[in-house]
Amino acid sequence: MRILSLLHHHRRLRRLRRRHIHHLHNYARPLTTFTVPLSHPAYIIWGSNTSLGKTLLSTGLASSFLLSSQPNAKFIYLKPLQTGFPLDSDSRYLFNKLSVISARRGLPLLSSHSVLLSSLPAAKSFLPHKFTSNESLGMCELKFREEDKVLDGVASELVCETLYAWEGAVSPHLAVEREGGFVEDSEVVGMVERRLREKMECFETGKVEALCVIETAGGIASPGPSGTLQCDLYRPLRLPGILVGDGRLGGISGTISAYESLKVRGYDVAAVVFEDHGLANEVPLMSYLRNRVPVLVLPPIPQDPSNDLTEWFDECCPVFNYLKDIMLQTYSERIQRLNEMPRKAGHVFWWPFTQHTLVPEGTVTVIDSRSGENFAVYKDNGFITQQFDACASWWTQGPDATFQTELARDMGYAAARFGHVMFPENVYEPALECAELLLEGVGEGWASRVFFSDSGSTATEIALKMAFRKYSSDHGILLDLIRGNTNERCIKLKVLALKGSYHGDTLGAMEAQAPSPYTGFLQQPWYTGRGLFLDPPTVFMCNGEWNLSLPEAFHSEALKLDDLTFRSRDEIFVRNRDTSNLAAMYSSYISHQISRSSDQIGALIMEPVIHGAGGMHMVDPLFQRVLVNECRHQKIPVIFDEVFTGFWRLGVETASELLGVLPDIACFGKLMTGGLIPLAATLATEAVFDSFAGDSKLNALLHGHSYSAHAMGCSAAAKSIKWFKDPETNLNISFEESGKMLLKEVYEINLWDEELVQEISSLPSVHRVVVLGTLFALELQVDGANAGYFFHNSFYTLSYMYASLCARSLLQALREDGIYMRPLGNVIYLMCGPCTSPESCRQLLIKLYGRLAEFSQVKEISESCQL
Amino acid sequence: MRILSLLHHHRRLRRLRRRHIHHLHNYARPLTTFTVPLSHPAYIIWGSNTSLGKTLLSTGLASSFLLSSQPNAKFIYLKPLQTGFPLDSDSRYLFNKLSVISARRGLPLLSSHSVLLSSLPAAKSFLPHKFTSNESLGMCELKFREEDKVLDGVASELVCETLYAWEGAVSPHLAVEREGGFVEDSEVVGMVERRLREKMECFETGKVEALCVIETAGGIASPGPSGTLQCDLYRPLRLPGILVGDGRLGGISGTISAYESLKVRGYDVAAVVFEDHGLANEVPLMSYLRNRVPVLVLPPIPQDPSNDLTEWFDECCPVFNYLKDIMLQTYSERIQRLNEMPRKAGHVFWWPFTQHTLVPEGTVTVIDSRSGENFAVYKDNGFITQQFDACASWWTQGPDATFQTELARDMGYAAARFGHVMFPENVYEPALECAELLLEGVGEGWASRVFFSDSGSTATEIALKMAFRKYSSDHGILLDLIRGNTNERCIKLKVLALKGSYHGDTLGAMEAQAPSPYTGFLQQPWYTGRGLFLDPPTVFMCNGEWNLSLPEAFHSEALKLDDLTFRSRDEIFVRNRDTSNLAAMYSSYISHQISRSSDQIGALIMEPVIHGAGGMHMVDPLFQRVLVNECRHQKIPVIFDEVFTGFWRLGVETASELLGVLPDIACFGKLMTGGLIPLAATLATEAVFDSFAGDSKLNALLHGHSYSAHAMGCSAAAKSIKWFKDPETNLNISFEESGKMLLKEVYEINLWDEELVQEISSLPSVHRVVVLGTLFALELQVDGANAGYFFHNSFYTLSYMYASLCARSLLQALREDGIYMRPLGNVIYLMCGPCTSPESCRQLLIKLYGRLAEFSQVKEISESCQL
Repeated sequence: MRILSLLHHHRRLRRLRRRHIHHLHNYARPLTTFTVPLSHPAYIIWGSNTSLGKTLLSTGLASSFLLSSQPNAKFIYLKPLQTGFPLDSDSRYLFNKLSVISARRGLPLLSSHSVLLSSLPAAKSFLPHKFTSNESLGMCELKFREEDKVLDGVASELVCETLYAWEGAVSPHLAVEREGGFVEDSEVVGMVERRLREKMECFETGKVEALCVIETAGGIASPGPSGTLQCDLYRPLRLPGILVGDGRLGGISGTISAYESLKVRGYDVAAVVFEDHGLANEVPLMSYLRNRVPVLVLPPIPQDPSNDLTEWFDECCPVFNYLKDIMLQTYSERIQRLNEMPRKAGHVFWWPFTQHTLVPEGTVTVIDSRSGENFAVYKDNGFITQQFDACASWWTQGPDATFQTELARDMGYAAARFGHVMFPENVYEPALECAELLLEGVGEGWASRVFFSDSGSTATEIALKMAFRKYSSDHGILLDLIRGNTNERCIKLKVLALKGSYHGDTLGAMEAQAPSPYTGFLQQPWYTGRGLFLDPPTVFMCNGEWNLSLPEAFHSEALKLDDLTFRSRDEIFVRNRDTSNLAAMYSSYISHQISRSSDQIGALIMEPVIHGAGGMHMVDPLFQRVLVNECRHQKIPVIFDEVFTGFWRLGVETASELLGVLPDIACFGKLMTGGLIPLAATLATEAVFDSFAGDSKLNALLHGHSYSAHAMGCSAAAKSIKWFKDPETNLNISFEESGKMLLKEVYEINLWDEELVQEISSLPSVHRVVVLGTLFALELQVDGANAGYFFHNSFYTLSYMYASLCARSLLQALREDGIYMRPLGNVIYLMCGPCTSPESCRQLLIKLYGRLAEFSQVKEISESCQL
Repeated sequence: MRILSLLHHHRRLRRLRRRHIHHLHNYARPLTTFTVPLSHPAYIIWGSNTSLGKTLLSTGLASSFLLSSQPNAKFIYLKPLQTGFPLDSDSRYLFNKLSVISARRGLPLLSSHSVLLSSLPAAKSFLPHKFTSNESLGMCELKFREEDKVLDGVASELVCETLYAWEGAVSPHLAVEREGGFVEDSEVVGMVERRLREKMECFETGKVEALCVIETAGGIASPGPSGTLQCDLYRPLRLPGILVGDGRLGGISGTISAYESLKVRGYDVAAVVFEDHGLANEVPLMSYLRNRVPVLVLPPIPQDPSNDLTEWFDECCPVFNYLKDIMLQTYSERIQRLNEMPRKAGHVFWWPFTQHTLVPEGTVTVIDSRSGENFAVYKDNGFITQQFDACASWWTQGPDATFQTELARDMGYAAARFGHVMFPENVYEPALECAELLLEGVGEGWASRVFFSDSGSTATEIALKMAFRKYSSDHGILLDLIRGNTNERCIKLKVLALKGSYHGDTLGAMEAQAPSPYTGFLQQPWYTGRGLFLDPPTVFMCNGEWNLSLPEAFHSEALKLDDLTFRSRDEIFVRNRDTSNLAAMYSSYISHQISRSSDQIGALIMEPVIHGAGGMHMVDPLFQRVLVNECRHQKIPVIFDEVFTGFWRLGVETASELLGVLPDIACFGKLMTGGLIPLAATLATEAVFDSFAGDSKLNALLHGHSYSAHAMGCSAAAKSIKWFKDPETNLNISFEESGKMLLKEVYEINLWDEELVQEISSLPSVHRVVVLGTLFALELQVDGANAGYFFHNSFYTLSYMYASLCARSLLQALREDGIYMRPLGNVIYLMCGPCTSPESCRQLLIKLYGRLAEFSQVKEISESCQL
């Protein structure tokens, strides 16, 4: 019976935990972007455990700073979360103590102490006359403020603030459970950010010396009011920290662990300080920290409660002074480095796809960190501000902040357990798990083998080698070679590919792309373009309606068609289009093209549904389906290049779900590792694999890269694949029963508000819109030249080389709105992660809509001026 | 004065710390490889702090296990490090307590309790009659053993052992400092491993139920006797763990941090258990752990010292039973997975460069983890054993165990701070630092730009694009194109390259390689071989002497030369060879070859000094120097492919130091990230970079990969570059003043015992030896066919396709010796990291020598039998 009750207990806990996860997720959180001032140094004071003297340290720092600075210096102390209030109040302690110290040391001081908000019980205890009702379960506005003035003269200033307080002397999350006063994470962080800005903005940079500390509650990973660990809670601000360690027996372990927990969340720690307990804990700590971080030791704190610590503070003076100097110096080094980074970058980097002469120093973006979907960008006016990474860092990104933290821990684990280990003829857990998940997921129903490499381009090269072997084996070429019936130099194999598709920048991948400025002599003199390149029909939304755009080859035939619009996007993907006139037209066009080719077609390669780098064009899925079927018919191996489209980028795990046909070979990369590190995979059917079997190693696929199936990449991929499709971790995932097909659940991620999308597509400045999964893209309508888009020019790549001035000024404005975008010529796009909330996406669209509307107005005005 | 004394204090600490680092490093540690038995479950009991009840948990587990198992079950308890002894003895507590419990519960039990070694003061307190002298500062052998028998009948067995004990009730490293009894890390781990094996091997698998726990001292990161943190100390065994958490106020934070410290060292934690203090700490803990790890709560432990905890243990029964079940189940799941991994791998992987039909399931190596240079390999006879990774996992590996741990933490930090962020037009710390370090290091004196990509192959493709542009610009081709004087299709550019060199498996990289089975139609129908491929002279050691081997083209001329041997390896590299007859001969040969080419030579590409994949051939550096000078003369851009040779692989940071000439472009990869994750860099001079400048984006290098300059790779690279060349972290680095050149220190790593190398090169089974930096390679003498090697065949690649039977049986034997090698045909090699100690290398050579000698004997016998 005991076990039963134990299990019951566990079930109860699981329920609690689930509720808790939703908190952690902050899923419904609006698109909050924070701006942290850097005009003066600000530090978080962390403790490796509770009750190690964080407040004494803050007090000592305040006194050291104010006594050694210019007369008008300012020290700001924030205590965001105070429990045990009003009995305990760290801000009040500091306020009182500093008055005593400054009086004793003859320092003129103006000081203030405020308490902003508290739970009702705390409010009643603190201000019993003001708070009498029992109503509020939220936070009460205390608006408490007291001031003090010590001595006359040019006074230094001390500001002490408690932001949120609870009565219970327990962790904030327990206090909330017991006495109410719940606060959202974003509220807490937003409040800290606002107080910081307010306190620092009131004086000009350089005029006043100031130092700010933010003292946390309990240990570094003690939960905040929502249950989120404090080290996670404050992460969007990523302020540097001082860690108060533990000088007692066992304290080395606790201090090191706390330090590591901060590091694996991306924090910097400027110093470790702890109270001496006679155990010389600094020796192993300094050894562990290897010069990276200074370790300071405070003399033992007198235990007698009647001792007012005056002597102790005096004794600590050199340590606090040293610590303060470290903090000021670390700060100025950081600012100096941030300021010089753009110039240095311009001197040492060779950026890909970048004409350096077009990137003046002032336009270089300094990225201080990332938290989930947001970059933290340094602005040289003294701020670090967040921008939504709407280019998804070249379409690789997936994680929200919660997932990033978890992935980071997993990366530490994988590096520590495996580093990288030799792959061929070996097996290790991350590689095996990753391969199994790939075959159960994107390879389900067709693939049986996984070949790992490092980038989309290498995955493509491998896919082509696989396809050519399979083709050669199926079409008797290998036999002819063995029998000496033919010479290998005489066999010309080509790929069948679509114009405007992109497969990578290594020569083999380039050869499978149609000629364009990217493939000319200037870029790669060896490029010849070994493909039969077809011009595909595309679909896009304009004025709220989905349209079909046919290439020139179909112009004469197109007149026979009734309608080139779709009532909804779903209609584009329905399978009953297979029996339409259009399908027949596609089919005869394709087979005609193949039959006309003088060389043998050894493979079909295509990006399913969306041509990414080619300008975010949606290819008519019917055309691609017909194409695949025709190749299957002619025993031409089919390669899907899903480097861009795979892993929920288009709302489904694999774009082949949208097309309704399966490949023989498929390439994956980018989002596969959650957007963390390079890893690519080429999946193949057993039949393709078998064409490499034989007694001789010469028959094997003699291709490999140093870091084949590296453990960290495979770990990241395994974790991401699971995370993205688990409804418990990805709240965007929903189970739907697709009609009568009960055997297979259909997951689909739809993130963009349909109405808003339609409105945007109706703006005069917008030429066309493509929206699917995590992608929203639009092409700007530029000076009327694109009007006749119905039959588009097949060599459209060139137009994506240059961002028009309009696009660039639009993007500049959006960056000010906290959205970091990159143009593809006149195509601009928003790309989120598979876990990004629809609410965030809606807000992105609203901001975009606002700027586009402005832009349309300006355009109209300028056009009317030209008249 | 106080500050001065503080600084003085810091200096003293720094000295202490330095001594400490040397401990951590374990540099002088012999080539220790451990073998952990897996026949029965064994767990480490960790504590998130000291005094949280690890011993009570072990006691409860022992009683649960013995009471619920078959009558002859066995519980093994090891306490490797006991301080406060003999007053405190956790093994004695468990021994005594179990006697009481089993008597009460009617369980027949045979139990024993031993204490093996202790410091002298502890020995004197414990056995005052036996230990009277004051001499020993090392460990005293106590050989203490007591036994107990409870009830008659088929008895279960309990074994309790304390391995090392000290008297002081402090951390072991302090106890050692105060009372002596120093023990090396490898001794402690070796002792634990031996006790485990001895205890488990005494009964057959499956016959007896057994469970083993190893209880640590203090917190997870409390130092062991040498100062090494316990979580680092036991890492080579990587036993799964149970974490005893903290249920008190602040305990959530400490427990989570401790868990994270274990994870970022690659440990698995099967469960977290802690004592209830009424704060429901399990709720945030379970939320944090997300189903991954069960969290169990023990009822409060009575504080009254007179309480013998009988009732408490009774009350805890369900929890201990549940925990025990988790431990047994986790164990059997692990074993099951390990056993099925080879079969599964054979079904889902497509290994690179592998003919799958030649890899039966039984030959697949299951790698459980890596610790520094060692793999931990699972053997299906129930062991995990360590093997030195002598293939350096395709030549990527660098870190020792200390560096791996540090890199892992840095990887967690980089992932948490940046994940991956967009590179073009942006700057962030890891990318900038990495680029700066590359330019100050391998690019010093010539390079000014860094282009990042993912693999050696992509770095090569980029290098070729750069070189061709520079060439086209320098030779008026671009101007001709712009003026319309020529058509781009008419310009044929070739590379100048050496036969036997290897630059990667993507098409562009393949085109720069001479035709071989790797480039044939079977592998890549698109390969044409766009190079002028020269046959290079090579050098090698045979019978203790270095010889020069000239290709056929030189045969007639070679007769004019006096001597084709060198007195030492240094003589091969001396610059005064530049004025020799041989140099003149090389020069005229090269210029003749270039002048004969019908196509234009747009670039020279070569692997400096060593052809890696081509069979570990050392190319005569004089030849390469002459070649570079000739190309420079003809304005042909020079590319060094240093993917294999860079970053101390050959004993210097860049192989161009060995050649004494500089490239215009160089490719780096592999060891650059310390062997952790893929990252490649192509460095170039400002002149090369400038040839891409212009007003138009079309002039830019339009090449890029998704994860360009990814933050984790750049962080790993920055860390590794610094680590490898810092004498404080890499003890192999020595500063030498190179003659009168005081401006530049020369670092060189020499690891292989010269005498041993010469002896090996004199064995009859050895055809040739190449040794340089971290590389030792030899070619086996196989059935006399290679005898006439003096003028070698230029198409030697083919012979490296197949490992001869001899090579394979040799490698099999060496794996049994704990060395994991991979053959290149008949070439076998040992490759260590830049930090591997010469002592380890010596032991590798000794083992290799032993097996080669055996092999020579067998060969001689078999040859004489054939006569």
